[in-house]
Amino acid sequence: MNRNQRSSKISNDTVKSLEAIVGKENCLTDPEDLKCYGCDASKYEYLPDAVLLPENAGQIPDVLRLANLEKFPVVPRGAGSGLTGGTLPVYGGVVLSLKRMNRIIDIDEENLTTRVQPGVVTADLQKAVAKRGLFYPPDPSSLAFSTIGGNIASCAGGPRAVKYGVTRDYVIGLQAVLPTGEPIRTGVRTAKGVVGYDLTKLIVGSEGTLAVVTEAVLKLIPQPESRRTLLAAFEDLLAAARTVTRIIKARIIPCALEFMDANAIQCVAQYQNVQLPKSAGAMLLIEVDGAQETVVRHTGDIKRLCLEEGAVEIETAASDADSEKLWNARRAVAPSLFKIKPFQISEDIVVPRSRIPEMVGFLQAIGRRLRLDVVCFGHAGDGNIHVCIMVDPKDSDEMRRVRQAVSEIFDQTIQMGGTLSGEHGVGITKAPYIRKEIDAFGIDVMRRIKAAFDPNNVLNPGKIFPDEASVTGFMQ
Amino acid sequence: MNRNQRSSKISNDTVKSLEAIVGKENCLTDPEDLKCYGCDASKYEYLPDAVLLPENAGQIPDVLRLANLEKFPVVPRGAGSGLTGGTLPVYGGVVLSLKRMNRIIDIDEENLTTRVQPGVVTADLQKAVAKRGLFYPPDPSSLAFSTIGGNIASCAGGPRAVKYGVTRDYVIGLQAVLPTGEPIRTGVRTAKGVVGYDLTKLIVGSEGTLAVVTEAVLKLIPQPESRRTLLAAFEDLLAAARTVTRIIKARIIPCALEFMDANAIQCVAQYQNVQLPKSAGAMLLIEVDGAQETVVRHTGDIKRLCLEEGAVEIETAASDADSEKLWNARRAVAPSLFKIKPFQISEDIVVPRSRIPEMVGFLQAIGRRLRLDVVCFGHAGDGNIHVCIMVDPKDSDEMRRVRQAVSEIFDQTIQMGGTLSGEHGVGITKAPYIRKEIDAFGIDVMRRIKAAFDPNNVLNPGKIFPDEASVTGFMQ
Repeated sequence: MNRNQRSSKISNDTVKSLEAIVGKENCLTDPEDLKCYGCDASKYEYLPDAVLLPENAGQIPDVLRLANLEKFPVVPRGAGSGLTGGTLPVYGGVVLSLKRMNRIIDIDEENLTTRVQPGVVTADLQKAVAKRGLFYPPDPSSLAFSTIGGNIASCAGGPRAVKYGVTRDYVIGLQAVLPTGEPIRTGVRTAKGVVGYDLTKLIVGSEGTLAVVTEAVLKLIPQPESRRTLLAAFEDLLAAARTVTRIIKARIIPCALEFMDANAIQCVAQYQNVQLPKSAGAMLLIEVDGAQETVVRHTGDIKRLCLEEGAVEIETAASDADSEKLWNARRAVAPSLFKIKPFQISEDIVVPRSRIPEMVGFLQAIGRRLRLDVVCFGHAGDGNIHVCIMVDPKDSDEMRRVRQAVSEIFDQTIQMGGTLSGEHGVGITKAPYIRKEIDAFGIDVMRRIKAAFDPNNVLNPGKIFPDEASVTGFMQ
Repeated sequence: MNRNQRSSKISNDTVKSLEAIVGKENCLTDPEDLKCYGCDASKYEYLPDAVLLPENAGQIPDVLRLANLEKFPVVPRGAGSGLTGGTLPVYGGVVLSLKRMNRIIDIDEENLTTRVQPGVVTADLQKAVAKRGLFYPPDPSSLAFSTIGGNIASCAGGPRAVKYGVTRDYVIGLQAVLPTGEPIRTGVRTAKGVVGYDLTKLIVGSEGTLAVVTEAVLKLIPQPESRRTLLAAFEDLLAAARTVTRIIKARIIPCALEFMDANAIQCVAQYQNVQLPKSAGAMLLIEVDGAQETVVRHTGDIKRLCLEEGAVEIETAASDADSEKLWNARRAVAPSLFKIKPFQISEDIVVPRSRIPEMVGFLQAIGRRLRLDVVCFGHAGDGNIHVCIMVDPKDSDEMRRVRQAVSEIFDQTIQMGGTLSGEHGVGITKAPYIRKEIDAFGIDVMRRIKAAFDPNNVLNPGKIFPDEASVTGFMQ
């Protein structure tokens, strides 16, 4: 079910020029290679004409200058773990994989910063800084393979965002190449800086459409002294949601405050080797970190609040290994879903956290009404709900009902003061919907910013903006 | 010594149109009023042609549409407490004071956000949220009178930035009017959101050149349970700086880590009613906050580190009143400087925090070499040094030496990997120097962003960008 939408291939001469820039061994054109770099976690596929794997930042300006001259697309790519198709070459052209630029350049313990190349895997950076007692908090579920460059492009979040914020909050400076080929340096290497417009935070989350990041300066913080995890089961989601509200009202900000609805619990209990109270209507996975004394006290406070709100079971991890077990239950949700049906349409809505029960109620009702398997889980502390609708793409009637559900879900999200995407980005899969959230004036100014950076629209075209984007429903 | 640089007045007909938009009582044209709104804390003065005080956001689009039609400047203004002239009408036109739009619209305790109009005074907001046990951390020294709108325009910091970050870190959504008159809504009201480019963070710190902010959604956090302050005197700055490094290396992030050099201490001791060890070569004001147990432990750790690095005197506040006394010593620096000479040239450089002693050494040497009164104090935890050169503007030879000193200081700052401004912005006073920090490609892309927002350059023209800016050294 794959189909390539691009209109024209780049010429053999262009391929030769690209080989001259990055080296023959770093320019791939074999069909097998093109296929590997033509898909991502969105499950869509669009083949590029060539794949480049530059070894250093110095090679990138020439690639972009050539692209402007010959008007072919250049699509930056990290690990390809994005869920919205942000890294797919929808108009063909060149995929620019940054994975060979994967050095941690330095870790500065006195100034609490690190300088990294974009291809560094997030988990590798976290381990390297942890050895020095330091902490890089952003923790997208993909962290074992996704890269800092990809995390920057999508402004990746994760469970810890509730306390520690998202990727944007840790990027203080960049080296990047503009779409027209000029290298720029943005932001600072220091704790603060307000000279000129904040290009750094503008590039973060721009999904590789404004610049190719070649180096990032990231802020680090001290590793928390201590951490404690607990898993609480409730009879219904309302009780779990009340608990979330009461924890926040008690002025405790856990470093994770995750939830699963009844469908998610049943999936995990049925398909994975994880012990869970199957009858529970909702579960919360709560983790607190910080100074040891405070963690102990806050864990006690949270347990009391869970019980007061009617928790039917609470499990507290006594060790790191125990804590891992509890996290496994949460992490098992996504893989276990595929036991229901072969594909999922995964949404990433956010509502004000106090409105989670109302929203999940709405989602469950829509599942019943449109006869769809809807599973909800995610970051309750942020109001960020991952809504998974399990589908069989061969069932065209079901696919029609899914599209209707997604449109209704987005309308309801906006009506509740929420946003269509908390951490996955827009890419191609959400582009048709962004007018629901951003008005015409906002989209116009964003388009003008894109044109100010990329007059020939060569860098990652066909993403974010409606109309231009071309999701046509062809899945792998 | 004031002089107005603008080339043309707006016509009487235009004034009538503006009166029709905002109401006659909200449009000022008396010379006394124009004078009040023609200066700020930079001490420069440029008279506007009219001052508007809109009462609601609905009046602002028409003002900007008229400005685009008749090509006159519109200069947004908060409390006028900025130090770099960012709010001065350098080309005349209309000053748009947001001070009458000063409502706290809501404080949402469940979702930890507040919605405010731009004219809300920062300290008033802090008091209002503190009553609910919540905390809005940014604390520029001007907080008793500066407004949230002004704080957003300049991305204000303050002592607490070392632990809690700056204004940018707390602004999650905006309502604003584009320079061409279209109202837009940016960002989210939720904890996360990644739909489209981050216009919110781009507008924060843009010094009123990209949009007029009419409403902001700010993130709040729980009020820390406990706080403790101490003041430590050292024989020399090197010992104080070593202490800063050791505190950070001990993985303690205080909520304030301020320093004063010997000149600052002498100023305060001589001119203010504050008891300080006059012979001290440097002082640190350190504050820790958080859970009670941790604050007690960290205060002990910090005291020990101060003593190990040779502190000659340590004073710990036993109560809030005592803590205020210690803060008074730090706050007395700026006012006491004016006892030396009537004016100051105030710089706001940042270097990696480990390089503070080297930088202050350089600053002291430049003072001796160029026979200038140089006083250094500021946020040691951020590497943010406020360098005050005290001057008599009538002494033209001294002014020449000051200009030479400033240029050398900026060169050294950049050479150390620092930035020209940590929290004061660029405005007009630093615009001639920004090429030292931002290369031509960076400035070009910023100019293109400005043009994308403001094709007729009506909103706060003459700021940030070099060449265009027109500081000609005329002070009040």
